[in-house]
Amino acid sequence: MPVLDEVLAANERYAASFELGELALPPARGFAILTCMDARLDPAKYAGLREGDAHVIRNAGGRASDDAIRSLVISYKLLGTSEWFVIHHTDCGMEFFSNDTISGLLASSLDTAALGPDGFYDVGDSPGSDAGADIDWLTISDQSQAVIHDIVRIRTHPLVPARIPVHGFLYDVRTGRLVEVPGAADAGRAR
Amino acid sequence: MPVLDEVLAANERYAASFELGELALPPARGFAILTCMDARLDPAKYAGLREGDAHVIRNAGGRASDDAIRSLVISYKLLGTSEWFVIHHTDCGMEFFSNDTISGLLASSLDTAALGPDGFYDVGDSPGSDAGADIDWLTISDQSQAVIHDIVRIRTHPLVPARIPVHGFLYDVRTGRLVEVPGAADAGRAR
Repeated sequence: MPVLDEVLAANERYAASFELGELALPPARGFAILTCMDARLDPAKYAGLREGDAHVIRNAGGRASDDAIRSLVISYKLLGTSEWFVIHHTDCGMEFFSNDTISGLLASSLDTAALGPDGFYDVGDSPGSDAGADIDWLTISDQSQAVIHDIVRIRTHPLVPARIPVHGFLYDVRTGRLVEVPGAADAGRAR
Repeated sequence: MPVLDEVLAANERYAASFELGELALPPARGFAILTCMDARLDPAKYAGLREGDAHVIRNAGGRASDDAIRSLVISYKLLGTSEWFVIHHTDCGMEFFSNDTISGLLASSLDTAALGPDGFYDVGDSPGSDAGADIDWLTISDQSQAVIHDIVRIRTHPLVPARIPVHGFLYDVRTGRLVEVPGAADAGRAR
């Protein structure tokens, strides 16, 4: 069955027994999670969320990008969240390439690259684009350091109030377990 | 119980019966969903995803921001997704304010604003920041038009190959149902 039909059939089943039509817009439990888009992560399951509980922001890496900051600021300023989690994970795709790798691959073609023992290599022959060279891809060389970096960026952002706790975790894709990142509790805090 | 303890207790239960440690990094079903951070949305439930199936990208509004484009390009170029969904929703918080509203509120204070019959108003007395004036908050005046706008932005982006289908839907928070946005199938396509 095509993906579109599978998704719509699954949605039909969900909607058939849907009884959550009166949920309020602001998150009932008053918190937000910033995490990775990785397919293996289900934040609702790994953090115990029901519909209506919490904001979930996801991008490649779970990074504190400008757009994640935009979302977090809307989350507390207009919708009342008062506690945030930054949750990266083990075996993240963002660890396996650099800005130069991906901009080079995109300049070569817009086909999907293959992954070999020495990293990604391009197999396509469609035209590429140089537009990737202008993008900071927010790759990761050390996961714990990346969590700390993102927590510091959030905590020291001029639009983020100091009163909001920001927790830093790594999700272990082999065990399903959240492991706190050492140093996250104090990183970037005013002394 | 504090939120942090609740999340860790829920994670303990999830990890206790976790049997998915061997899932591969690339999404098994080869697609990605871009949707809103709204707490009422659970993409895994409304679209029928199991861990490992699909990338999920979420931000305030489910907008095709630069950061969402970054994530989508990584998704197809390095991790092989070949079909994407843009899914906004009814009763979205992004419809209820403007750039001027939120930048004005943030300039006034970094406390959470209250929502009255005439819109958001500021109640705090902590210092504010002018930094919100430099941000495009990607607010929404018409949900269907916003989906079309985002699909056009994705389809016409120089790093997005024309072969990738991009579907446009609104999720109805009262019914749990996905409703296709009229015109989404052709918006921004080369003639």
